[in-house]
Amino acid sequence: MAIPVADSTVDVLIVGAGPAGLMLANWMSRFNLKTRIVDKRGTKIFNGQADGLQCRTLEILDSFDIGHRIWRESNHMVEICLWNPDETGRIRRSDRIPDTIVGISRFQQVVLHQGRIERFFLDAIKENKADLKVERGVMPTTFDFDASKAADFKDYPITVTLRTLTEDEATPCQSGTASSPGGTEIQDGLFRSNLAPDDTADLIARAELNSRAGQTEVVKARFMVGCDGAHSWVRQQLGYSLTGDSTDYIWGVLDIVPVTDFPDIRMRCAIHSESQGSVMIIPRENKLVRLYIQLKEVPLGEGGRADRSKITPDVILKSAQKIFAPYTLTYTHCDWWTAYQIGQRVGDKFSLDERVFLAGDAVHTHSPKAGQGMNVSMQDTYNLGWKIALVASGVCDPAILKTYETERKKIAQDLISFDHRFSRLFSGRPAKDVMDEEGISMDEFKMAFEKGNMFASGVAVDYKDSLIVSRSTSPSTSTLIQNSDPGRTISIGMRMPSFKVLNQSDARPWHLQERLPSDGRWRILVFPGDITTPTALSRYTSLGTKLAAKNSFLHRFTPPGAKIDSVIEILTIHSAPRRDIELTDLPEIFHPYCETIGWDYWKVFADDESYHEGHGQCYENLGLERKGAGAVVVLRPDQYVSWVGEMGDYEGLEKFFGGFMVERK
Amino acid sequence: MAIPVADSTVDVLIVGAGPAGLMLANWMSRFNLKTRIVDKRGTKIFNGQADGLQCRTLEILDSFDIGHRIWRESNHMVEICLWNPDETGRIRRSDRIPDTIVGISRFQQVVLHQGRIERFFLDAIKENKADLKVERGVMPTTFDFDASKAADFKDYPITVTLRTLTEDEATPCQSGTASSPGGTEIQDGLFRSNLAPDDTADLIARAELNSRAGQTEVVKARFMVGCDGAHSWVRQQLGYSLTGDSTDYIWGVLDIVPVTDFPDIRMRCAIHSESQGSVMIIPRENKLVRLYIQLKEVPLGEGGRADRSKITPDVILKSAQKIFAPYTLTYTHCDWWTAYQIGQRVGDKFSLDERVFLAGDAVHTHSPKAGQGMNVSMQDTYNLGWKIALVASGVCDPAILKTYETERKKIAQDLISFDHRFSRLFSGRPAKDVMDEEGISMDEFKMAFEKGNMFASGVAVDYKDSLIVSRSTSPSTSTLIQNSDPGRTISIGMRMPSFKVLNQSDARPWHLQERLPSDGRWRILVFPGDITTPTALSRYTSLGTKLAAKNSFLHRFTPPGAKIDSVIEILTIHSAPRRDIELTDLPEIFHPYCETIGWDYWKVFADDESYHEGHGQCYENLGLERKGAGAVVVLRPDQYVSWVGEMGDYEGLEKFFGGFMVERK
Repeated sequence: MAIPVADSTVDVLIVGAGPAGLMLANWMSRFNLKTRIVDKRGTKIFNGQADGLQCRTLEILDSFDIGHRIWRESNHMVEICLWNPDETGRIRRSDRIPDTIVGISRFQQVVLHQGRIERFFLDAIKENKADLKVERGVMPTTFDFDASKAADFKDYPITVTLRTLTEDEATPCQSGTASSPGGTEIQDGLFRSNLAPDDTADLIARAELNSRAGQTEVVKARFMVGCDGAHSWVRQQLGYSLTGDSTDYIWGVLDIVPVTDFPDIRMRCAIHSESQGSVMIIPRENKLVRLYIQLKEVPLGEGGRADRSKITPDVILKSAQKIFAPYTLTYTHCDWWTAYQIGQRVGDKFSLDERVFLAGDAVHTHSPKAGQGMNVSMQDTYNLGWKIALVASGVCDPAILKTYETERKKIAQDLISFDHRFSRLFSGRPAKDVMDEEGISMDEFKMAFEKGNMFASGVAVDYKDSLIVSRSTSPSTSTLIQNSDPGRTISIGMRMPSFKVLNQSDARPWHLQERLPSDGRWRILVFPGDITTPTALSRYTSLGTKLAAKNSFLHRFTPPGAKIDSVIEILTIHSAPRRDIELTDLPEIFHPYCETIGWDYWKVFADDESYHEGHGQCYENLGLERKGAGAVVVLRPDQYVSWVGEMGDYEGLEKFFGGFMVERK
Repeated sequence: MAIPVADSTVDVLIVGAGPAGLMLANWMSRFNLKTRIVDKRGTKIFNGQADGLQCRTLEILDSFDIGHRIWRESNHMVEICLWNPDETGRIRRSDRIPDTIVGISRFQQVVLHQGRIERFFLDAIKENKADLKVERGVMPTTFDFDASKAADFKDYPITVTLRTLTEDEATPCQSGTASSPGGTEIQDGLFRSNLAPDDTADLIARAELNSRAGQTEVVKARFMVGCDGAHSWVRQQLGYSLTGDSTDYIWGVLDIVPVTDFPDIRMRCAIHSESQGSVMIIPRENKLVRLYIQLKEVPLGEGGRADRSKITPDVILKSAQKIFAPYTLTYTHCDWWTAYQIGQRVGDKFSLDERVFLAGDAVHTHSPKAGQGMNVSMQDTYNLGWKIALVASGVCDPAILKTYETERKKIAQDLISFDHRFSRLFSGRPAKDVMDEEGISMDEFKMAFEKGNMFASGVAVDYKDSLIVSRSTSPSTSTLIQNSDPGRTISIGMRMPSFKVLNQSDARPWHLQERLPSDGRWRILVFPGDITTPTALSRYTSLGTKLAAKNSFLHRFTPPGAKIDSVIEILTIHSAPRRDIELTDLPEIFHPYCETIGWDYWKVFADDESYHEGHGQCYENLGLERKGAGAVVVLRPDQYVSWVGEMGDYEGLEKFFGGFMVERK
């Protein structure tokens, strides 16, 4: 074994470069922190794997300026068709429902394979911080944690040895190639027939592995995050485990270009056949369709596990054909295939002393059909990233790190129960009639689907009270917010909904969320109401005066010499007619002046009619009265609502921020 | 002088790699034709120059899959504010009007500097045809045309010598650096402070120039297009000239980050001061604002030309400050500046024997303020590109090439008169009252602005009758099309308007134009009406049967063995409820079957309500009755409407295509 070649220290060491790890690296690339990310695989993923992206995930990716790339390239799933046996046992379309609940987001569910999402992250990271690169073919081999250093968040309690693998070691096993009906060779892993052109550099980099093979290095880290999948090495080091169980349900997956007369092959479909099992259809990009196919005839081996060697694409296709009958189904092109046994497991502890964290599949595993896995995993590190960054940068108190586990463990548990219920309904045999108690009621299935859509969208996430989600200090919320449509109104603990507003200075319509980029800043959204009225204007001006004062919390929490909007940004959305307001008449703190670039024209917005894109009705949708007393809303750097107060409650605002922000000298 | 190093033949030689040349190269990259593009400059443009993009231009760029990049990166201009002297002589905002007429396009006018547009073209070309690269620092030096070969469009009548320049020769002159008020060095040319990262490769390539400097090469071409600007070398070779005249009006241009208390600095503004001249404000990307500033105090030298050496950024700024008063205006960052004398000139001949063509500034020059130059230039070669490509590929008869001059010369002439009228109104002194006959009426100015917006949008372009625009053989148009809103209805000679429709197979909403990519195909849009009614279905089926027949024009004009949609694509937009139609019940010709990839799910659309994006009301907007007799619309590869007929008029359709399509063996 080679001796260690270099010792180094990092602020954050990320283990695993799948969607969760890359989301975290992407966060870190926006801060002045030393970050490394390693992955034991020699290359990124090129096809197959996860594919579903929920609307909240798209909102998040858009806040990093990559949502539009996914929105364009992905297949949009608009409608779900339910197919059930009719009285003769033949499958019939029984229902159509919208795939994403109407009105909860400006995005809808789309499908695009994991490799493309990873590519967009890699591009974004490169744009922000060219020297933060995924170190592939590198894995940690030893771990040491010095608990005595854990309380000092400037110190480095973590020591890890990293080893560069040989190319063979870094290439995941393929479970054998197999012939498709058309004769094409297919694989269930890194099959590269649809290799996107911008991945070439990754393949070249892989060639460098051998020259470094066997080298080891000792790294000291302030933080480490295990995004290293269901068999997480980091989790093993911590001695944590997942609990849960697996079922007898075996499913196969085929990514194919289908040749079929089934009329809804480009719709998301749930097909329950009378007795041959179920299929879910996920129409994808590039004419591909993913089929999740229940395999009823695969024998279980010892320990209740399916015998993987008995499963081939042909076996899966034949099962599908029985379920699709009398419709025909075949293919000549298969892009990827796999099989799995449904199970649900969740971790009990997500962190060691808020210095080592687990995220994604390392703390929750479940079946893929609900299209949740990649979403919840990325949202884990979306939740964690800014917290680590703001603590490591000295902006926020380390106490906020505890909220990662309290917030995300509940989501993981909800996900596990959702999947448990959903899988049972999906894999069960349809009831023949109301007396058939062993069968699944198709009405119940439809209801579960519809209700499940709110959960699955990611928009329903509702974080409980903590230092940074403060219902208790926002007593006036119920009088300020008149609407209760989930996903459309301001609700503490939930993400800020988005409606179109107009820039006061140039009349351009923006979705509110487009002005809430994930850049690590807290935001105060000021809704002063109709500031053509003296009362509203006076409340607004009075708040402005307090915020602008030299000893205001805004100044105290902003480093001396830094721009006043660098830690907390203030945005105004008023409900006066845009044409009746002049930006220059408003208090300076709401559109700060700079000697070299003049006034800031990008912070004040009007809830008014646009020329070309209608009226966003932002106030009404959010539950605010246009002519009312207004409101102040604090958003975390991840767009979740922290605090809501009256326009006059400067003290409440100050107290809220005082609970976790660090005063700067 | 070095001897020629290599002789070669090309199908198309493009001289000049500005927007017009790159648009043409971009077209050519989509065909299997040998194309070269040369430019005498050593690098592309990085800032300054043209910036305005009209809505029709965005539609065109979107048809090449690059519109979205511009839409995201550009500044959107939404409102125009008019500022005039009040009775005391102080400038006041007198009016606000929408910058783009509401409802004529899915895009609105935006601003982004020319260099970024060129970058997006270069990326698109690389994606289509990696070996088609701009040869920079290369200029043609001799030209020969063998008229005896002009009639055989397979032959090469053009001979050109190309010479590689030295780096010095390839670098455009700078008219001297100058100090800005803040002390920054600024240039009026290739200033690189805002160099976008993806331009690096261009700068590196420039370093290669010297090693090839002085080399010459003889090239034989089937077609040559001069996109080489106002001083066009190609035009000189043909002995053609531009006619027109220049005025006494001198204007300066500053691209700055303004520091000002003028309230509408982020709006497009037309400011007429009482006696100090006029300013147009064009708010741009990256906090920049472009100011067009009338210079009243620049003396004219010999020959009526302004003395350029007397013009500096300070002179321009001082003129602006007088016009803006009492508002203040200064800057510390200047990105680019220039000055020009208004004039309008247009060419008489656009082509030599339909083998050598002129486009863009080579055939029309005018003042930049109307934001037309780059647009009309790109639209010249957008019009020309597919014609050359389809003739060179043997798809269409060479006779269609004559339409380039007949169609585009009229546009150039309209542009010249528009600019003439507009410049006079802009540069003139505002009238003091109705008796002040020498002054310009501000009401007349406003009206000209509003009317000019339809012309300026590019949507009003209306090509006259020819082989490929056939009003005369479309006699039933007036009974089929009930609407006459310009820009919103089907009108022969104009571009096809766009409204949202739903894909029959997956319910996804698309703007109709998104399904009309510029790929060189002709398209037949079939509007069969409500095909749940037996009459409409029978008309639709009957048309399908004729189109599918082995001796149909569709088969005769498609090469044997090629896909049936490879020359002419048929799209259906029906008005039946989407849920009442099954794709598999419709005639195969409207959704062709392929043994390896199954049915085509991307050719049939419904004019119906979507879940998340409203109802496009495509039939109503286009002027078609939902329950009516339907219509068939033929579109050219550039989205212009060629022919409109009844559902039953297969013979008319056949006759129209028979006029210019080549039968394939």
